[in-house]
Amino acid sequence: MIPDDEFYKIKGVPGPTKEEIRCLVMCKARVSSNDVVLDVGCGTGGLTVELSRKVKKVYAVDKNPQAVEVTLKNLKTHNPSGDVELFENDALTIMDDIPTFDVLIVGGSSGDLVPIIKKGYEMLKAGGRIIVTAILLETRTSTVLTLKELGLNPEIVEVFIARGKVLDRGTMMKGSNPVAIITGCKSI
Amino acid sequence: MIPDDEFYKIKGVPGPTKEEIRCLVMCKARVSSNDVVLDVGCGTGGLTVELSRKVKKVYAVDKNPQAVEVTLKNLKTHNPSGDVELFENDALTIMDDIPTFDVLIVGGSSGDLVPIIKKGYEMLKAGGRIIVTAILLETRTSTVLTLKELGLNPEIVEVFIARGKVLDRGTMMKGSNPVAIITGCKSI
Amino acid sequence: MIPDDEFYKIKGVPGPTKEEIRCLVMCKARVSSNDVVLDVGCGTGGLTVELSRKVKKVYAVDKNPQAVEVTLKNLKTHNPSGDVELFENDALTIMDDIPTFDVLIVGGSSGDLVPIIKKGYEMLKAGGRIIVTAILLETRTSTVLTLKELGLNPEIVEVFIARGKVLDRGTMMKGSNPVAIITGCKSI
Amino acid sequence: MIPDDEFYKIKGVPGPTKEEIRCLVMCKARVSSNDVVLDVGCGTGGLTVELSRKVKKVYAVDKNPQAVEVTLKNLKTHNPSGDVELFENDALTIMDDIPTFDVLIVGGSSGDLVPIIKKGYEMLKAGGRIIVTAILLETRTSTVLTLKELGLNPEIVEVFIARGKVLDRGTMMKGSNPVAIITGCKSI
Repeated sequence: MIPDDEFYKIKGVPGPTKEEIRCLVMCKARVSSNDVVLDVGCGTGGLTVELSRKVKKVYAVDKNPQAVEVTLKNLKTHNPSGDVELFENDALTIMDDIPTFDVLIVGGSSGDLVPIIKKGYEMLKAGGRIIVTAILLETRTSTVLTLKELGLNPEIVEVFIARGKVLDRGTMMKGSNPVAIITGCKSI
Repeated sequence: MIPDDEFYKIKGVPGPTKEEIRCLVMCKARVSSNDVVLDVGCGTGGLTVELSRKVKKVYAVDKNPQAVEVTLKNLKTHNPSGDVELFENDALTIMDDIPTFDVLIVGGSSGDLVPIIKKGYEMLKAGGRIIVTAILLETRTSTVLTLKELGLNPEIVEVFIARGKVLDRGTMMKGSNPVAIITGCKSI
Repeated sequence: MIPDDEFYKIKGVPGPTKEEIRCLVMCKARVSSNDVVLDVGCGTGGLTVELSRKVKKVYAVDKNPQAVEVTLKNLKTHNPSGDVELFENDALTIMDDIPTFDVLIVGGSSGDLVPIIKKGYEMLKAGGRIIVTAILLETRTSTVLTLKELGLNPEIVEVFIARGKVLDRGTMMKGSNPVAIITGCKSI
Repeated sequence: MIPDDEFYKIKGVPGPTKEEIRCLVMCKARVSSNDVVLDVGCGTGGLTVELSRKVKKVYAVDKNPQAVEVTLKNLKTHNPSGDVELFENDALTIMDDIPTFDVLIVGGSSGDLVPIIKKGYEMLKAGGRIIVTAILLETRTSTVLTLKELGLNPEIVEVFIARGKVLDRGTMMKGSNPVAIITGCKSI
């Protein structure tokens, strides 16, 4: 994984997703080099960049023009040759214009979480995976409920990370915000 | 417990210990109204104030003159009638000048953790309790080792707290730094 | 707090609520000796016992006859003189038969969480407090949503506890299940 | 990552390292296909198998004959063609018989943590990485101290994971034991 501080970032655009969380999302996404991925709410582009290094094609979308700009900049720095198509738009609209995909990653959904999961599920190839990272309590339950409604058996992992800061007097543990990673697999 | 934001605080003085941690320390200290307590490294005085409301007498000590000042201010605001003696000094020196006590709380030890626990143990009444709050990894292991050397059976509890911030779009969970609370009881 | 292992417990009845969580619930409940408390889903009676030591009167209710029996046994052991009225019933029915109260504690709600909070809120005295302990994701969001609907500003604290087990080779950290403690205060 | 329950395991042999921790260790190890890795305290072989899929050569060692047997079985199931050399021995002895390596993973050290790190550091290629997973408090501080003594700047990440169990009445969060992952990089 690319260290957090090697991403360009600006105020007003969340991210990058912390290294350990990116690592776990990549792990749950089980991507392979033939996969097509839709990355919804790409923010700073942390996951977009990592995905672009492992898969065939990434479609990344964010409503926020600044997010698109920052993601573009990070792609240029960290993987200029990656096959990434970036959209400044909402995910529901974009899904009308792209082919089916193997993996749907939802990092931000601007209030459209449930329809994004539902429409994404329709467009997901058999055996494909949906991964939602949730920093809000409500995102956790809505995702679990929606995946259950779709007949999937959601996997939920909440991750609490503390990082040690090495000081003269010892190693101070600094907590970060808990994130839930929720995964659903479409049956084959 | 007094809410965190009702304590006066200044830069350069750590604290107050977060409400939930104060609550757990009070719980582990099992103080009663007849107890005499030594509070080492009182910082902002969060625990000093809480202790002063429950026990007969608190001796509080901090090397940092600003900490003593802030603690004094918080005592005046939250428990002006509490029986608290405050020292700007190091704990080892102060222990020569005070009587034996029922509870030793160590929130900060300025590098003297082991001798403070050892000397504190000698001065602890039978059935008394030592409680160390540790934000450093090294404080955790040194405390456990020292309590074991003294023949005590340490109880170790590490606490990770996340607080929900209610936003328009949902409840964002914000992590705080993990703290370990380590307790030893002197046999009767 | 009474140590966890001093409570009588049986299979099929959840609890007792872990010492640290009981401690934090008591802290958030801010009970005083004049308070009347309704304890819904008392389970093993861990909180019922602690409450009964601090307040004027506890009404405790559980649908499970075994829970009522176990709570009774724990009350007899740990606070035989406490003023506790125990009901084997559902909380909504019981609320018709008891007077108003200062504190509502919800540890279990058998699918009636939202109506229990709503009816409890009506019966809560001005300045009273509702505290819900949630081990399910869905309980967290339903509680937050319901308290917001009632015009309250919910406080949410998620608690992750690990306990050290002292072994010959060192101190092994054992995690426990995260619990959210959600509090709402009725305005005066 | 291979799901936890797809590993063969037996009583008396710890592991497999949980999927999320394996994932984070692999992330911190930053292995590439040309790497040679020494896996100390391989236990059930969870990490050995994952490593064997990504690197040129794995040397795995465990003092416990049962661990070696279980690791072998898991290698046969999950990566029969991986280039893994397995030793039933202690790590310090084995290091005399193997060439230098790019990555040292220490999952168990049977009381030899500090000499294993020190000798491992000597044998580590320039730019190589040491990763220690610690479930004991004492392993955390000894590792940090030893890496600092060697002139490295240790990275410490403590990970608390809770998994959701989907029940009829909702999603119950089940905590697991916190693990610290400590990493040091040898300068080039």
